Amino acid sequence: MTAFPDNLKPSEPSGPSILEKERKNSQISVTEIGNHLYAHNGFLERQSRVLSLLMKEPLFSKAQQAQLSRIDRFKLAVARGKLIRRLQDTHQWTLEDYKMAHYLVDEPTPYHLHMQMFRTTILEQASEEQQAFWLPQIESWDIIGAYAQTELGHGSNVQGIELQARWDSKEGGSPTLTASKWWNGTLGRMANHAVVMARLLLPQPTGGYVSHGPQAFIVQVRDLETHLPLNGVVIGDIGPKYGYNTMDNAYMLFDSFRIPHSALLSRYAHLDPKTGVFTKPEKPVAVYGSMTNVRANIVHDAGLALARAVTVAVRYTAIRRQFRDRDSQDPDSSELSVLDYPTVQIRILPLLAAAFALHYTGRAMYESYHRARKEIEQGNFQGLAHMHSLSSGLKSLCTTMTADGIEVCRRSMGGHGFGGGSGLIQLNNDYLAKPTVEGDNWMITQQAASHLIKKMALAVGTLHSPPTDETDAHFKYFLKHRTEARTLDILGNDEDICASFQWKASSQAYEVYHERIVKKSHWNNILLQLHQLSQSHAQFFMVRTFFDSLNSCRDMSPLAKAVLLDLFRLLALTIIKSESYDFLRFGAASPACLDALPAKIQFLMTHIRPHAVSLVDSWMIPDYLLDSALGRSDGRVYEDLFHRAHRLNPLNKLTFNPNYRDDEIVKGTRENGLAILSKI
Amino acid sequence: MTAFPDNLKPSEPSGPSILEKERKNSQISVTEIGNHLYAHNGFLERQSRVLSLLMKEPLFSKAQQAQLSRIDRFKLAVARGKLIRRLQDTHQWTLEDYKMAHYLVDEPTPYHLHMQMFRTTILEQASEEQQAFWLPQIESWDIIGAYAQTELGHGSNVQGIELQARWDSKEGGSPTLTASKWWNGTLGRMANHAVVMARLLLPQPTGGYVSHGPQAFIVQVRDLETHLPLNGVVIGDIGPKYGYNTMDNAYMLFDSFRIPHSALLSRYAHLDPKTGVFTKPEKPVAVYGSMTNVRANIVHDAGLALARAVTVAVRYTAIRRQFRDRDSQDPDSSELSVLDYPTVQIRILPLLAAAFALHYTGRAMYESYHRARKEIEQGNFQGLAHMHSLSSGLKSLCTTMTADGIEVCRRSMGGHGFGGGSGLIQLNNDYLAKPTVEGDNWMITQQAASHLIKKMALAVGTLHSPPTDETDAHFKYFLKHRTEARTLDILGNDEDICASFQWKASSQAYEVYHERIVKKSHWNNILLQLHQLSQSHAQFFMVRTFFDSLNSCRDMSPLAKAVLLDLFRLLALTIIKSESYDFLRFGAASPACLDALPAKIQFLMTHIRPHAVSLVDSWMIPDYLLDSALGRSDGRVYEDLFHRAHRLNPLNKLTFNPNYRDDEIVKGTRENGLAILSKI
Repeated sequence: MTAFPDNLKPSEPSGPSILEKERKNSQISVTEIGNHLYAHNGFLERQSRVLSLLMKEPLFSKAQQAQLSRIDRFKLAVARGKLIRRLQDTHQWTLEDYKMAHYLVDEPTPYHLHMQMFRTTILEQASEEQQAFWLPQIESWDIIGAYAQTELGHGSNVQGIELQARWDSKEGGSPTLTASKWWNGTLGRMANHAVVMARLLLPQPTGGYVSHGPQAFIVQVRDLETHLPLNGVVIGDIGPKYGYNTMDNAYMLFDSFRIPHSALLSRYAHLDPKTGVFTKPEKPVAVYGSMTNVRANIVHDAGLALARAVTVAVRYTAIRRQFRDRDSQDPDSSELSVLDYPTVQIRILPLLAAAFALHYTGRAMYESYHRARKEIEQGNFQGLAHMHSLSSGLKSLCTTMTADGIEVCRRSMGGHGFGGGSGLIQLNNDYLAKPTVEGDNWMITQQAASHLIKKMALAVGTLHSPPTDETDAHFKYFLKHRTEARTLDILGNDEDICASFQWKASSQAYEVYHERIVKKSHWNNILLQLHQLSQSHAQFFMVRTFFDSLNSCRDMSPLAKAVLLDLFRLLALTIIKSESYDFLRFGAASPACLDALPAKIQFLMTHIRPHAVSLVDSWMIPDYLLDSALGRSDGRVYEDLFHRAHRLNPLNKLTFNPNYRDDEIVKGTRENGLAILSKI
Repeated sequence: MTAFPDNLKPSEPSGPSILEKERKNSQISVTEIGNHLYAHNGFLERQSRVLSLLMKEPLFSKAQQAQLSRIDRFKLAVARGKLIRRLQDTHQWTLEDYKMAHYLVDEPTPYHLHMQMFRTTILEQASEEQQAFWLPQIESWDIIGAYAQTELGHGSNVQGIELQARWDSKEGGSPTLTASKWWNGTLGRMANHAVVMARLLLPQPTGGYVSHGPQAFIVQVRDLETHLPLNGVVIGDIGPKYGYNTMDNAYMLFDSFRIPHSALLSRYAHLDPKTGVFTKPEKPVAVYGSMTNVRANIVHDAGLALARAVTVAVRYTAIRRQFRDRDSQDPDSSELSVLDYPTVQIRILPLLAAAFALHYTGRAMYESYHRARKEIEQGNFQGLAHMHSLSSGLKSLCTTMTADGIEVCRRSMGGHGFGGGSGLIQLNNDYLAKPTVEGDNWMITQQAASHLIKKMALAVGTLHSPPTDETDAHFKYFLKHRTEARTLDILGNDEDICASFQWKASSQAYEVYHERIVKKSHWNNILLQLHQLSQSHAQFFMVRTFFDSLNSCRDMSPLAKAVLLDLFRLLALTIIKSESYDFLRFGAASPACLDALPAKIQFLMTHIRPHAVSLVDSWMIPDYLLDSALGRSDGRVYEDLFHRAHRLNPLNKLTFNPNYRDDEIVKGTRENGLAILSKI
């Protein structure tokens, strides 16, 4: 191989020199903002400690993983899953350390459901006796478990699942093909146990069976020695997907398969083994609890995922030069940084702001979840409905923002964003599961809206009583002032920005309340309004939380606070702009303000631009996680792109035979196309 | 393997029975609309003729292709590319037949650039003598060619490319790493020739060299026998990408590589071999011509790609049942078709309308291109600027609509949309190249806007002269009436819908003209307005073309026309709704109309819904092309999903070893993770 390319350098100015200049030009402290983001939970210490251990293991190299077939990619993920668990033993990692390792290796591990939904469900729904039996085996990984709820025919509508668990009967099992379990991670190839949701069917004295709805059972599905499915269990992986190809999402059918009475998870549900009398939990607390916890995680992770995409996009577009200023008088002027173009800024900088917003939102939701959880354990279910509503609305809003945002970042990088060096390919592919998983983003907004309609009805009914909570206070404020004129200065006053979102959200709640409760409109006819109502409230929560998080920060330097407040304004005003007409219609913003919005947004972007590189640096996302030539912290974009192509790409080891009259594909091999297909 | 699953059926109602009912419930004629869409160019006859030949070849089975490694996937594509070319010989296919085969096999072939940009450029830019030498070798595939313009450091800014072609010098070549050619399809592994764009450097009498900008050269890059790169050429494939993984996008560097004088394509450019005097073409006609042709293709294909995604989404969401009507009094009511929910309709039905709009737009653009081309050949360059502007604006608008639309369709199908059975995975991955390729969608809108500003300046300057063309007429109409009040009835009058788009587009042109020409704003400061201006005009062209195409159709049945007009209205009103505030601000729509828009849109969707399945049937997209369990024309969704998982997925042949203490991945193999990585 000729050494010629090794001696070539990219044209000037070089990536490293550009990033150095960008970092010097901003006076904000990366350490200060980094600590502000993470310091409270030891995230940065954990990240660097775990990272240094991972870097020693060749198995975690990401250099070739995009080259692999689905089968080999899955095998690699299994090997990595095992190694991480062994590292946990060796280094006495906590569960948080273990999760950090997976976050950095950055692939859904085939063991994921075992330590997540399987373990969590046993913790939350198994009786003490059941826990004593199962938890030690779970913690030691002597058994591997999955969570089997969704079926081929039913996902969102859990009540509609078809798998039957019949009391003391040899029939039961999967009555239809659509009763096949489907999508259940860790179950396709890995798990030997699963929590299985099935309709509990009990015999009636009058003959026949009556359904007691979906209940959770712990079921062994594979032999612990041979790892083959037990008799009566048909099980496998559903095949390649848009992403998540390192996960063995399953199908599973039962053919007259018998499970013992002890399989029913019975912390809340009881089935008398002698009489067959079934008692249901009074409130579906536990189910809501698990789902809300999962959604809280999803919202929190949305910020990190978006920050990652934004880090890559900001660094690369700062380095990338394209076109001279066409108005410049200087014929020798150099090409401009792509990030200096407003058409690039408008795509990336609001997402930079959004990453911060999601971070604060996720943190607030965690806190709110843990508060509600504590109350529940004390027998107080008051906060549950609010928490469930909030988690639905925010899951929908935040995962859509991140899923769309990653793709916007990718496209903002032009051609190179489409290449493997972007580091956004697997991120995009995997993340795109989020808008539909754990409650489809367009479906679960009904849950949020339903709660808000009830709250509005309550506010209308008790208008002159003191507010019972924050939402009640906002709704009563709206009801008392809705005929008055408002003058909210969204361009000059941050409190007014929050007030504008609050007013729009309350107005929409009232509009939908009126539609449903007063006019008695059919629920399915107002689904679009319900969706918008949920979005509006989630946006309000996010914007308010963003502002409050900054405002309550007493020890932040004035410069950092000023820049973060500009991000807050940019995010809020970008949302207002995208929904201008609704803000106008509800009187939440004036025409004068709305007309001035584009200029204000461009003004804010010009102010944020010099700090963009430092702001993404503050997220302290390791190069190993980014796995991106374009987003490298040292700026060696072109060297790395060329290195990946010229030195790492195995396709370049093959010399092809381009002659179409000849069947041979690679010169000298005589292998033809059918030989490749038959390899599978 | 147990036979149990073979005997299971999906729960009722079955997919086939649902689609049958859907088809019966609509009175529109699928054949009529199909012929209306395609009849003019023999598309349907060609499709069925070519398809029947492809179906006989096992190599074209798509069943396992998503399983393959990048290397095997590429090999398969090479084998398919050869076979299609052999079929062309055998069956005496025209170029259109050949393209149809690739369209149906549905993967970017590694031979693509040979028959496209390489051949086209030789046709358009080579002298007659050069053509006589090269074209026979190109047509016979005795040589395989590529088109090497984009470099690692420069894409959009063609003037900025760094590769040097120095007259009569042993230096020259790639001066920097960023001068490496990059992205050039067919070149990475397949081509032995390429049209190479390089800065022509000619010696000055005073010493040193002067650049004559990028010029096109035909260059042999690989040995015709060994297929190894020639000395001085460093070349390879750039590696895995978001999509297009069946294409060998290249990097290429030249180390003091010498090319003969005859390499310069000299239909327009001349370099005297004796004196070294260079004469440039007067107008960059040819370059614009090629690019405009490529863009016309892209716009046309956008409609087909979107129609494909919509076909899948409509069929699946019609079949998919989820949740009972919560307002129903009947406890035994069955679950609703997902497509009956407005929250699903609002995502899919406007895209169904958009597919039609893109179809008509693509056809209009083709006609316009061929008209302009004919004029150019007669020495009339008048239409070129308009054509270039139009192609830029439409390429940007249409590919963004389709790229976003495919993903919206995918998500509208919930979890199953993420699975391999959706048939949208490779479509999405490959299509996402389009928004950035051949002129980035945010960059090229400047070209459209620039032309429109000039046209507005002209209209202002010649206000009282008769209009010179349509745009001039629209602008003059605007200038004469802009102070008057308008009452456009966008809810009840189709002409007013078109007028509303025209008014907004003209208003924005005037606003930007004022900003740039009167206020002399800096070009780069108004990039966002320029982008919006281009979008506005492209939208107007699309909406107007949609309406005119239906209106001018004299032989269409009243029912078909009524339904297609509803689609026109749905598309137009959906766009207006998404940009309500701008329509309001320019007086292109009244507050009363805008307030009534959501109800009108929902009303239109209710009217279109019964025809949705028949409308997608009209596109007549073969099941082989769809390759989708969810979108099958026979509705056997769940049977096919299960078949792909249970019978076709090779991962299920492997029994894994889940014990983390054991390095072994697959039971009985002793193979560990590092063995997999080392396979590459």
